[in-house]
Amino acid sequence: MDQRHELSATTSAAVTLTKPLHCIVKLGGAAITCKNELETINEENLNIVSSQLREAMIVGPCHGMDWSRRPGSSEIPTVVDDFDDQLESDSKKFIVVHGAGSFGHFQASKSGVHKGGLSKPLVKSGFVATRISVTSLNLEIVRALAKEGIPSIGLSPFSCGWSTCERNIAVADTLTVVKAIDAGFVPVLHGDAVLDSSQGCTILSGDVIIRHLAEELRPDYVVFLTDVFGVYDRPPTEPGATLLREIAVREDGSWSVLKPELEDMSRPVEITVAAHDTTGGMVTKISEAAMIAKLGIDVYIVKAATDHSARALQGLLKENIPDDWLGTVIRLAK
Amino acid sequence: MDQRHELSATTSAAVTLTKPLHCIVKLGGAAITCKNELETINEENLNIVSSQLREAMIVGPCHGMDWSRRPGSSEIPTVVDDFDDQLESDSKKFIVVHGAGSFGHFQASKSGVHKGGLSKPLVKSGFVATRISVTSLNLEIVRALAKEGIPSIGLSPFSCGWSTCERNIAVADTLTVVKAIDAGFVPVLHGDAVLDSSQGCTILSGDVIIRHLAEELRPDYVVFLTDVFGVYDRPPTEPGATLLREIAVREDGSWSVLKPELEDMSRPVEITVAAHDTTGGMVTKISEAAMIAKLGIDVYIVKAATDHSARALQGLLKENIPDDWLGTVIRLAK
Repeated sequence: MDQRHELSATTSAAVTLTKPLHCIVKLGGAAITCKNELETINEENLNIVSSQLREAMIVGPCHGMDWSRRPGSSEIPTVVDDFDDQLESDSKKFIVVHGAGSFGHFQASKSGVHKGGLSKPLVKSGFVATRISVTSLNLEIVRALAKEGIPSIGLSPFSCGWSTCERNIAVADTLTVVKAIDAGFVPVLHGDAVLDSSQGCTILSGDVIIRHLAEELRPDYVVFLTDVFGVYDRPPTEPGATLLREIAVREDGSWSVLKPELEDMSRPVEITVAAHDTTGGMVTKISEAAMIAKLGIDVYIVKAATDHSARALQGLLKENIPDDWLGTVIRLAK
Repeated sequence: MDQRHELSATTSAAVTLTKPLHCIVKLGGAAITCKNELETINEENLNIVSSQLREAMIVGPCHGMDWSRRPGSSEIPTVVDDFDDQLESDSKKFIVVHGAGSFGHFQASKSGVHKGGLSKPLVKSGFVATRISVTSLNLEIVRALAKEGIPSIGLSPFSCGWSTCERNIAVADTLTVVKAIDAGFVPVLHGDAVLDSSQGCTILSGDVIIRHLAEELRPDYVVFLTDVFGVYDRPPTEPGATLLREIAVREDGSWSVLKPELEDMSRPVEITVAAHDTTGGMVTKISEAAMIAKLGIDVYIVKAATDHSARALQGLLKENIPDDWLGTVIRLAK
């Protein structure tokens, strides 16, 4: 962990935003795709998430920014003509990062891209196939956000020149991200297949990207949108699973549950990892979230497309967490 | 021109390829899209072009690398299982750059992205809409090439951090392109909306990208695939239009037609610019091609998906241009 910290600190140029970054949002793969159907978007959730994001970001009028035809549709999109050049909306600075869900995982696990070995034809093909799948999803998410009026700009980590060494971030210059934000756009990054200087290639997960961006750009808070209400003490499908409302992270990286008070504090909290998840699932998520919280940045893990996610995105949980808010907040221990 | 040269020379880090670059190919927007139908790909041409590119690049077996579902289709792509890890194909280093055709131009010209002014809501929306359209096309081209067995990797200039100043390239680091090539991939770039430090934003055309890449990476030759047989002395639809077979470029950038011998050499060669082409059409193409030829790199302008394009892509025209080859070669004057 410390080594990873050091690597990212030494390889990134100091880049500062003109206006501070308000929030980094993770759109979890499980929340925006149908996890058990190959390359299928959860349209309903994605539309609600896009609308909640727009409400959290933009005060004032906005216009649809997706003026493209749908593949296979002959319908030409309507472009409104009532742009008022005098009236600029006030907007908060956001970055969106999304996972892969039912995109990318099949291609990555079939070929073993995360294990490296680009000289093998199967791995090289899988690298190409994985990038096609995750960039397809990225384009769909950029379109959904743009349709809602969010000035979204797709940024692939591979294209941004990001790479790893021993599967940890080695080069991840945030200059392009910062320039896009300063120009008034909302960068949309994603978990991606990238080059790795030790093993040839690997998968860089959305969660690791978020931790890196949080370290470099220090947002006010970070929101992880997922398909369950938050972090549980055991798989949420099991009877008696308890939602962990508040987790405190100490300077040494260890963490403990503040709320609710668990009956048996000595019992380790169980975590679930989906079999086809090549990037670590909940283990990675909590570990990356804890590293963000250690920086003094509050992290909210919350169910997407609910009233709870809307409140988290709008930053309504900064001081006290209301009793009727369902989700997990991870904070630096006081 | 000189200023542009200087700018690109001072801002790019020295980057060298492990193996020399064989060829840069431009897939002209008019050749791979249906120019008069909004956002419609010329599937037939794109498939032939992909096949010709594979034959020019790869000797030996190769596998389909697009393992993704088509949007709206329930068909799951077949992934072959006969990968032989011992058998690596021999392949030549290529870069593909494509234009926009019926993608992007509508969005760019409606909003005036090329004229800048990102603080205007219309321009900002148009910037987002243009990038959605051109990255949709990029994804389709990457998929067509991957399906054919070419290890294609989409690289958006914006995401690579490329930007302009007074509409000329200011920052265009080729490191990511070089790393992708060295790792065995074929980068696929495209004309894109980018940030401009003087006017806020503009359109960076595929032709300008090719000239920059040729300067930095010195390929053996450059091929422009288009929808006509080459450069004509007047619009090719006019009666009596003559195909210019060979154009010689002098050190000062001026050029003259060597073949055929024109009756009236004093008559200026006419050039056509489509009304909706925001990036300059044939004027830019010839001017950029001349700048490449000045470096001593042969440029072939040829009709896509013909026997003539196949021969140009395979590098069969290095010494003598056969009489039965239809196209335009632009070379440094001897």
